[in-house]
Amino acid sequence: MKLTILGCHSATPKIDAHTSSQLLDVNGNLFLIDCGENTQIQLRKFGVKFSRIKNIFISHLHGDHFYGLVGLISTFRLLGRESELNIYGPKGIKEIITLQLNYAKSWTNYNLIFHELTSSKSEVVFENNKLVISTIPLNHRVYTNGFLFKEKIGLRKINLNAPNLAFVDRSFYQNLKLGKDYVDEDGNVISNSELTLSPNPAKSYAYCSDTQYDESIIPIIHGVDLLYHESTFLEEHTEIAFRTKHSTAKQAAKIAKLSNSKKLILGHFSTRYHDFSKFIDETKKDFRNVELAYDGKIIEF
Amino acid sequence: MKLTILGCHSATPKIDAHTSSQLLDVNGNLFLIDCGENTQIQLRKFGVKFSRIKNIFISHLHGDHFYGLVGLISTFRLLGRESELNIYGPKGIKEIITLQLNYAKSWTNYNLIFHELTSSKSEVVFENNKLVISTIPLNHRVYTNGFLFKEKIGLRKINLNAPNLAFVDRSFYQNLKLGKDYVDEDGNVISNSELTLSPNPAKSYAYCSDTQYDESIIPIIHGVDLLYHESTFLEEHTEIAFRTKHSTAKQAAKIAKLSNSKKLILGHFSTRYHDFSKFIDETKKDFRNVELAYDGKIIEF
Repeated sequence: MKLTILGCHSATPKIDAHTSSQLLDVNGNLFLIDCGENTQIQLRKFGVKFSRIKNIFISHLHGDHFYGLVGLISTFRLLGRESELNIYGPKGIKEIITLQLNYAKSWTNYNLIFHELTSSKSEVVFENNKLVISTIPLNHRVYTNGFLFKEKIGLRKINLNAPNLAFVDRSFYQNLKLGKDYVDEDGNVISNSELTLSPNPAKSYAYCSDTQYDESIIPIIHGVDLLYHESTFLEEHTEIAFRTKHSTAKQAAKIAKLSNSKKLILGHFSTRYHDFSKFIDETKKDFRNVELAYDGKIIEF
Repeated sequence: MKLTILGCHSATPKIDAHTSSQLLDVNGNLFLIDCGENTQIQLRKFGVKFSRIKNIFISHLHGDHFYGLVGLISTFRLLGRESELNIYGPKGIKEIITLQLNYAKSWTNYNLIFHELTSSKSEVVFENNKLVISTIPLNHRVYTNGFLFKEKIGLRKINLNAPNLAFVDRSFYQNLKLGKDYVDEDGNVISNSELTLSPNPAKSYAYCSDTQYDESIIPIIHGVDLLYHESTFLEEHTEIAFRTKHSTAKQAAKIAKLSNSKKLILGHFSTRYHDFSKFIDETKKDFRNVELAYDGKIIEF
């Protein structure tokens, strides 16, 4: 997986501080997560081919997470998009987008499909043969979901250096990938382990923004390779974090530790801060493998 | 008047090509005209103090003219704005904005006043003691208005170098500004022209975007100091201009000529063009005092 942070700042966009949006590349399939104002410009900056985005996930209906969506949908149309686009987000998102398209006497020349979310429990919202995407119910001022991207265990890989591979007909390769032993016409067996290698490890990524500290997400995200957890505030503003249903960096670290996450990325910083090193300082005691998000950061894992 | 072009490109925003938005400064009063996505970032680039914007004019409900409005309204709130904000635009704009604020369980801690426009005739939408703003009904695919900003003839100015000014009591200055002669207790008259200077000339600005070629606007904008007229297309695409209800540069020049405008600014360029000098080439024959808009251009007049 390859994660590109397009924007990781809260509330209002500034010249060099974009609001929430991320692009997750899972084996060449692109998933856009949140879409603050200006996301389409950020996508252009990073040379993303728009037509490759087929699924967009919106956490909640606060502007800094979705005000760029209607513009992106319009731009897709103007660029002549034909392939369908799926939008996953809270109930209401369809009404907001279609109201604006209707007033513009506009339309999409591609299939625009809304998957409106209402459940307060984790649910699978996307699945193909390689990946499952589930919601992570979060605790914020409005109905909010994070999203868990979890690869399925893949097929075993043909070991092209295996000496005995020469005896196996290519038509049997798919069976090898599925873990079967090879048996020739005379009944001789070559065990699968002699012919194949283990599949790539299944990776997982959890996006949790916006939310207050909430341990109920721990079983859902347990053991993820990468956790993005909002940390809008520092410890000195714990009371504001509680009141506005946001988290501090220290709280994000606790969630990372309790969920046994392998790595933590902090983001969604309040515009009041300028020295971001304090976010790391307040985190390290509870969780060492932590990094700050910044607009343009790329993490491959 | 001082006009700052924040964005002058049509359809979709690009890294260095912002969609429609302009800031007009009339004696220190700021008027925002259209508000494409990213306008708040453009305003920050030009160091505009947000609280000074009290009136926003939206020409029509195509995304490249208003997708940045809801974000700007939200940012005003987050920055603690208290002074009222007036939005002038087509019917529907209130529904679009308030729907989004409602889903966000948001509110404005300042007074947000919508002035929804429905008339197909020119009407005065704003007036104070120095300025009148009227709509310019345009001919586009959806209900659209341009806006005419017209200064009123100001007061005469006290001539501080006038020798006879020493004989006049300060309490009479307001009467001098209104054009009255001074008469002292003995009945001696000092004529107004000896004591005052002519008022600053009243300036006017017409914003016309988006529209197809339409001579019915000529009496409304007649004699303006500055005309911004959309020129989405070049002559080779006249047919597309007609079909999409846009104008060519040559058509914009004809309107400028017929309306006796003093100066023409071309803008709202289609993303298909890269060499903008052709827009000037196709205009000069009909109207010489023409300039291209570009993002960041400032025109004082």
